[in-house]
Amino acid sequence: MTVHFSDRVGSRTLNPIAVAEREARAQGRTLARLNDSNPTRHGLSSAEVPWTYSAEPRGPRHARESLASYLTGLHGMEAGRVRDAAPVDPDDLYLLSSTSEAYSWLVKLLCDAGDAVLAPKPGYPLIESICGLECVDAIEYQLPFDGSWMIDVAGVEALLEGPDGGRIRALVVINPNNPSGSYVKPGERTRLVELCRDHGIALIADEVFFDYALEPFDGNARLAGERGVLTFALDGFSKMLAAPNAKVGWIQVSGPEEDVDEAKRRLDVIADDYLPMSDIIASRMDALLAVAGEQTALVLERVRDNLRRLHELLDADEHGLVSVLRAEGGWNVLLRFPSVIDENELVLRLIADHGLTGQPGYFFDMPSDGYLAISLLPEPDVFETQVRAVLDVVAAMIG
Amino acid sequence: MTVHFSDRVGSRTLNPIAVAEREARAQGRTLARLNDSNPTRHGLSSAEVPWTYSAEPRGPRHARESLASYLTGLHGMEAGRVRDAAPVDPDDLYLLSSTSEAYSWLVKLLCDAGDAVLAPKPGYPLIESICGLECVDAIEYQLPFDGSWMIDVAGVEALLEGPDGGRIRALVVINPNNPSGSYVKPGERTRLVELCRDHGIALIADEVFFDYALEPFDGNARLAGERGVLTFALDGFSKMLAAPNAKVGWIQVSGPEEDVDEAKRRLDVIADDYLPMSDIIASRMDALLAVAGEQTALVLERVRDNLRRLHELLDADEHGLVSVLRAEGGWNVLLRFPSVIDENELVLRLIADHGLTGQPGYFFDMPSDGYLAISLLPEPDVFETQVRAVLDVVAAMIG
Ligand SMILES: Cc1ncc(COP(=O)(O)O)c(C=O)c1O
Ligand SMILES: Cc1ncc(COP(=O)(O)O)c(C=O)c1O
Repeated sequence: MTVHFSDRVGSRTLNPIAVAEREARAQGRTLARLNDSNPTRHGLSSAEVPWTYSAEPRGPRHARESLASYLTGLHGMEAGRVRDAAPVDPDDLYLLSSTSEAYSWLVKLLCDAGDAVLAPKPGYPLIESICGLECVDAIEYQLPFDGSWMIDVAGVEALLEGPDGGRIRALVVINPNNPSGSYVKPGERTRLVELCRDHGIALIADEVFFDYALEPFDGNARLAGERGVLTFALDGFSKMLAAPNAKVGWIQVSGPEEDVDEAKRRLDVIADDYLPMSDIIASRMDALLAVAGEQTALVLERVRDNLRRLHELLDADEHGLVSVLRAEGGWNVLLRFPSVIDENELVLRLIADHGLTGQPGYFFDMPSDGYLAISLLPEPDVFETQVRAVLDVVAAMIG
Repeated sequence: MTVHFSDRVGSRTLNPIAVAEREARAQGRTLARLNDSNPTRHGLSSAEVPWTYSAEPRGPRHARESLASYLTGLHGMEAGRVRDAAPVDPDDLYLLSSTSEAYSWLVKLLCDAGDAVLAPKPGYPLIESICGLECVDAIEYQLPFDGSWMIDVAGVEALLEGPDGGRIRALVVINPNNPSGSYVKPGERTRLVELCRDHGIALIADEVFFDYALEPFDGNARLAGERGVLTFALDGFSKMLAAPNAKVGWIQVSGPEEDVDEAKRRLDVIADDYLPMSDIIASRMDALLAVAGEQTALVLERVRDNLRRLHELLDADEHGLVSVLRAEGGWNVLLRFPSVIDENELVLRLIADHGLTGQPGYFFDMPSDGYLAISLLPEPDVFETQVRAVLDVVAAMIG
C-alpha cells in the first residue's frame, strides 16, 4: 500500500512560467530572475556572512555531502562490527535545526488535523507536545518490560486495525528509546516494517542515541536506510556531538521508490517555506563532523563509567531498595524503588533535602509507580552524590 | 476584548514537582536536575561548540540584550528623525530562524485548525502557504491602488463582521508591503489597531523592509512596540543585514499587559518545543549587529540608485508603454505594462529571448493583468540590461 500524505501540501500544478523555466534548465540554460530578492547574489553580502545563499530546500549541498559521507562511515560500522551498508545519498538528507523541527515537518507531511501518529510508552514526552501543536493526536503503544524491554507488536497491529486505525499516519520508533534505553530488535523490526507497509503508514525512526550502546546485543542496526517501507530516520548533533546548542538535525528518507519520490517532492515544499539551515552553521559542517567521532567516544565513556559506578553503588547499598532497569543504550536510565513510595513525594523530598529535582515514571507514562529517571552524564563525583541522595531519601521514606 | 488563543497549547496545570521547583527557585535556591540531559552542563562540550547551553525559550539572554539595545537605537531614529520610542525589552523578544518560522509559531499560538488570518492582497505569497501547513486559511484583504497604495480598512472591518469573522484570529500587516512597497499610514494604523482590539484579534506586523524607505512621507513609524492591541512585530537579518542565509529572525511582543502575559506564557511553550537559536549563531550576534547599520546603508543606496535609473530608463523609452508604480519602501517594485499583453506570454518571451524569468502580477494576486515585479537589488549594469530587456519585449509584443 502506498503511503497517505496530508492535504497541507497541495498538489501544486505548475503554472506556464514554471514549466518554461523547467524546460529551459533541462536544456542547460541558466536563467536570471527579474525579481531575485537574494542580496547575496548581487554583490551585497556582508563580510560577517560572506557566502552566496543557495536557498536549497534540503540544505546547502556541500554540507549534505559532508554529512552523507560521515554517515556512510557510521552506518557501515555498527555495534563495533563492519556491516554492509549502502552509501548515504546527500539527496536523501534534509538538514534542519533539530529533531523537534523534523518531527514537526513530518507530522505536517503525513497528517491532516485530527489524524494521529503512534508513539511509544514509555517515551519522549516532546512527541505528544509537538503533535498537539500540529493538531494531531499521539496515540501510545506499549513497550512492556519483563527484565528487558520489548515492543508490543501485536498491540501496534491492534491499534492499526482498531477504531483509530483509519487516522493513524505514522509509527514513531525511538531506537534506542528514551528513557527506557531499549533498541528495536531485528525480529520486531521485520514485523513493524511489514505492518507499516501493509497499512500504508510511514515509519519515523528517532535514532539520536543510536551510537550510545550500553549493553551489546546481537544484530543491532540502524533503521536509517530501511528499504521495506517509507522511512524517515532522525538524527542530529544534539547527541552525536553532545551539542544540543549547535542546532543541527537531519532527516534521512528511504523506502520504496514511488513513496520516496512523492515524500521528497512534498517535503521540498515544506522545507522551501522554512529553509532553516544557516550558512553560518553550514560553513562549519566539516569542522563539526571532524570532532563528532571523538565527542561520541568521550560521552560514551562517561555514560558507561557512570553506569558501572551506579551498579556498584546499588550493590553496596545496605537497604537494597533501589535497582536499575536494564538499559541497552542512551544517556538515561530508570531507577526502580518500592512502589509504596509516592513518586511525587520522593522528588519533593529530594528538592527539600538535597536541592535535587527529577522526573519520576509518570512523566514518561510508565504503567506503574516507583520509577525515577536519572542521567548518566554528570561528572563522576556529582553523579555519585546524586545517586547517594536518592538512596538516602528512599531509605528514609521506607524506614 | 482580550485576544483568543488556540487550543494547540494546553492550559498546563503545574504538577506538584513543578510547583515545588518554582517555590524553591523563588526562595533563591538553585536546583540540580537528576535527569539533566544537557551535556554542556557536565563538562562535555566540544571545542567546536564550546558554550554552555542555556536552552532559554526566547533565545540566549546575551543575544536578546544585544539585539534589544540595537533595536532601541533603530526605533528611536525613524525616517531620519529622532523619535521618542520606548526602549526595547529583551524579554519581549523571541529569537528564531526566520520570519517564516515566526509566522508559523504565531499561527499555532492564535489559530486552531480551520481558523483564519487576514493577509494583504497584493502580498507575500508565503503567508498563504505557511497558513496552509498549519491547517489555517489566509483570507485576503485589499490594498487598492489609485496612484498610491492604501489599506481598505472598511473592507477589513466588513471581513471581521462577515460570515468568516468568527474564525479570524489575526490581521497580518506588512510594513512596507512586498511587492507593493506601501507603508501603513498613521490614520490606517489607528483604525486597524482599534478594529483588532474591538474584535479580540492580534496584529502581526511584518516589518522586515522597514528601513528601506524609497519615498519619504510624514509620520512613518514602526508598528513594533504598539501598545493598543496585542502586537507581534517580525523582523530579522534577512533584510536588515541583507543576509537571508544567516537565519536570524525575531518576534517583538507588545500590547495590553494581560494579553501580552498570556501570549508570552503560551509562546514560551511553543518556543521550548523547538528552541531554534543556535549558540554558534548567538555567539556572533554582537559581530553581526556591528555591521547591520552599514549593510542596511549599502543596500539602501543600491535600491535607491536603481530606482532612479529605472525612472530615467522609462522616461527615455521611445515607446512609453511601461511605467513603475509608486513604491514607498522595500527592495521590489511593480512595472505596469499594457494589459492587452498576457502576463504569462510576456515572461515566456523574456525566458526565450533573454534568459530572464520573473513573477507577473497574478503571482501576488494583483486585481488585474499588466504587472511584473522587479528587484532593485542587482548591480547597476545588470539592472539596466534587465530593464531594457523588459522594455524591448513589451515593445515587440505591442508593435
Ligand atoms: C528521543 C529523543 N529524540 C531527540 C532528542 C534531541 O532533540 P533535538 O534534536 O530537538 O535537540 C532527544 C533529546 O533529549 C531525545 O530524547
Ligand atoms: C514580506 C516579507 N517578510 C519576510 C521576508 C523574509 O523572510 P525570512 O526571514 O523568512 O527570510 C520576506 C522575504 O522576501 C518578505 O518579502
